[in-house]
Amino acid sequence: MNRQDLLVSLRAAFASPTVDDFPSIARTNHPADVAALLDELQPRQAWRLLGAVPPQTRAELFANLSAERQVGLAADIERRELADLFLHLSPDDRADLFNRLPEDGRETLMPALAQVEREDIRRLAAYPEGAVGAVMTSDYATVPPHLTARDAVEHLRAVAPDKETIYQAFVIDDERRVVGTVSLRDLIVAPPHARVADFMKREVITVSADDARGEAARLISRYDLIALPVIDSDARLVGIVTYDDAMDVAESEATEDFHRVGAMGGLAASLRDATVASLYRKRIFWLVMLVFGNIFSGAGIAYFEDTIAAYVALVFFLPLLIDSGGNAGSQSATLMVRALATGDVVIKDWAKMLLRELGVATLLGATMAVSVSILGVWRGGPEIALVVVLTMQLVVVIGSMIGMSLPFLLSRFRFDPATASAPLITSIADATGVVIYFSIATALLGIPEPHA
Amino acid sequence: MNRQDLLVSLRAAFASPTVDDFPSIARTNHPADVAALLDELQPRQAWRLLGAVPPQTRAELFANLSAERQVGLAADIERRELADLFLHLSPDDRADLFNRLPEDGRETLMPALAQVEREDIRRLAAYPEGAVGAVMTSDYATVPPHLTARDAVEHLRAVAPDKETIYQAFVIDDERRVVGTVSLRDLIVAPPHARVADFMKREVITVSADDARGEAARLISRYDLIALPVIDSDARLVGIVTYDDAMDVAESEATEDFHRVGAMGGLAASLRDATVASLYRKRIFWLVMLVFGNIFSGAGIAYFEDTIAAYVALVFFLPLLIDSGGNAGSQSATLMVRALATGDVVIKDWAKMLLRELGVATLLGATMAVSVSILGVWRGGPEIALVVVLTMQLVVVIGSMIGMSLPFLLSRFRFDPATASAPLITSIADATGVVIYFSIATALLGIPEPHA
Repeated sequence: MNRQDLLVSLRAAFASPTVDDFPSIARTNHPADVAALLDELQPRQAWRLLGAVPPQTRAELFANLSAERQVGLAADIERRELADLFLHLSPDDRADLFNRLPEDGRETLMPALAQVEREDIRRLAAYPEGAVGAVMTSDYATVPPHLTARDAVEHLRAVAPDKETIYQAFVIDDERRVVGTVSLRDLIVAPPHARVADFMKREVITVSADDARGEAARLISRYDLIALPVIDSDARLVGIVTYDDAMDVAESEATEDFHRVGAMGGLAASLRDATVASLYRKRIFWLVMLVFGNIFSGAGIAYFEDTIAAYVALVFFLPLLIDSGGNAGSQSATLMVRALATGDVVIKDWAKMLLRELGVATLLGATMAVSVSILGVWRGGPEIALVVVLTMQLVVVIGSMIGMSLPFLLSRFRFDPATASAPLITSIADATGVVIYFSIATALLGIPEPHA
Repeated sequence: MNRQDLLVSLRAAFASPTVDDFPSIARTNHPADVAALLDELQPRQAWRLLGAVPPQTRAELFANLSAERQVGLAADIERRELADLFLHLSPDDRADLFNRLPEDGRETLMPALAQVEREDIRRLAAYPEGAVGAVMTSDYATVPPHLTARDAVEHLRAVAPDKETIYQAFVIDDERRVVGTVSLRDLIVAPPHARVADFMKREVITVSADDARGEAARLISRYDLIALPVIDSDARLVGIVTYDDAMDVAESEATEDFHRVGAMGGLAASLRDATVASLYRKRIFWLVMLVFGNIFSGAGIAYFEDTIAAYVALVFFLPLLIDSGGNAGSQSATLMVRALATGDVVIKDWAKMLLRELGVATLLGATMAVSVSILGVWRGGPEIALVVVLTMQLVVVIGSMIGMSLPFLLSRFRFDPATASAPLITSIADATGVVIYFSIATALLGIPEPHA
């Protein structure tokens, strides 16, 4: 069935959802779709429906709700019910929810859980939000190396209900160090009596729990992995990141970079559900910063008042020239920020790329100078045209150099290269452009030195 | 082993790669890493090494090379060898390479292939580049519905070598319509004698081969799928998209959107390997377009020459005011473009979001107006400050409204909403800002109507 048809029939069944119908709806539809509709209900009604399905299904639906909705619903039920829900959530979802609960919610919850659950939550919840440890799950499958392929499949069948995936299993030694990995495909294809130790893959790609979560997503994408093992500082296996979590991480990292390049902070909620207050907070900081950044351009213009007064035709070309430098610079910065984020370039490539950018920018500047020269002659005569052409060539080259360097510099000093790159570069390029334009004009058109 | 250590030892082994060492290097390292090093060699040397490994390994390494390198190497070998390589590539990689070959390369290749291969290539290569059909593979696994779970596993084991994945298998009827799906996990966990038809999942999410490839990536991410079945216009199964291909699609779509928002065309090569010419072509169009967009701002300024001459202090605030409208608008556009790309918002949400944006922009504008008011009093006195404050409030609200609407309008008329959104909005907001600023100044400061 086509997804649209599925959604239409699901929505129809949900028009007046009853406790009687809900279990069959939940059984035949994907939890992501059912959860999307639960997201729109009042908390009380959502709980009434969730109460009608088995605990496992309830936990699966709950895990598919939006983060804000999860916290809202958690505040609405008894401690004992919440503890029961917790037990059925997978360890990574559990740790995420725990981290999102308010302080008092956490404290009332802990005593209701068993010792082992408490420790698991504490361990997973201890990693900072952007770390691999915060997206990994501890529900991974291991196989002993001495098992035969047939017995290993039997073993995975037995543990399957508690594991996030059984398609990749890990072989660990007595100190929980990963010594090999086998896929379920390998196990099925291998001769039934072959021993795991004899055909497991010994070169295992791992990631550290303290690494940035984006690194896990990049490794999974590059090596087409189903699950990436996560190790602690003693190289012991502590969890896995699965491909589906990696997709979510990659999407949310790309969204964050997107927003940062556009001079905004991180937005926790989805744009559709974001509140006026959260959008305001996300956007105001850089807007105000950039206001003050633009003061330099204004000061530059004020400084050259005499030149402007003598050649008012110059003003016509002002926005066009200063924006061109900013636009060319934003392009370089955008290319660079994305290439740094996907791991396509690394800092050591910088010098080579800067040289190439010089070539590209020279060509871009020349083309733009030619296109603007006719306009220059028409609006201001040949002398003004010369000023405009020279300025265009210079601001495009300088803007591009800044645009190519700033993300590298930020990332060199461990700042996020995406942060406000494009607008910041526009502000810098604007101020530089003003000074270049009027300096060239003052020099070429022979106006007495300006006074402040 | 840590990935860095792996790469270091691989690079050491590659320092002077010999035909004798290469097979063992290729066996113990991931094809993505080995291919990255092959990418740096001369074509002749790369072929010499590739010639030393079995055809299957050769094809796997080849498929991991960059697109440009694949075409370059393909031009460097005999037709018969190329045909042999083709046979060992997976159908999707084969179709990709075929599409990238020059016309004459394709024509000499076709006769060297068997009838069935030719048809498969023609079919897969027929889909346009952005379609699901162009990223799908025809190497999917099917299981007959009457098999028992045990027999189905046995069946998948037998077909495994030729299939992209056996973790998800599809049940099709006589007309190749998908009637159900089972995962290998389901098959392993099910009682050995249970029939596939009795426990397969009947609600199968599918995608059309003509849909945009991003849609396949979104479905795979939303429903945590390993493989998504692709159907033709008659609802017949024609291929699958696997999760790893979906990750690549999602990454390249995010990169393209990133670049488009920054006013650039698509870049086929990676940024590191891009040539000066390709970067120039990618960037020049929008730079020149935006030059002409800025003419309106220039014309606006020229039109208000008299006002400017009477109150030169106004010029100080010009860059700051017009950029603020553009910055606020770019923020809205960036949020919206990304939300449209991830499917987070749809066109019907527009009216509601525009209303919310009005609230957000009013608050943003008010905050920015307050921050700039002190500067206004200091540089220009209370009257100029009033003009600046009013203009700030207005340009931020108008810029935000434009920023929120333009991506929606573009996507409504089936243009790509990402295309040049931020710089285009900056240009529009700049021109609007100039007119608003000097109109308010002229009205409040009581200067006679300007003449052109």
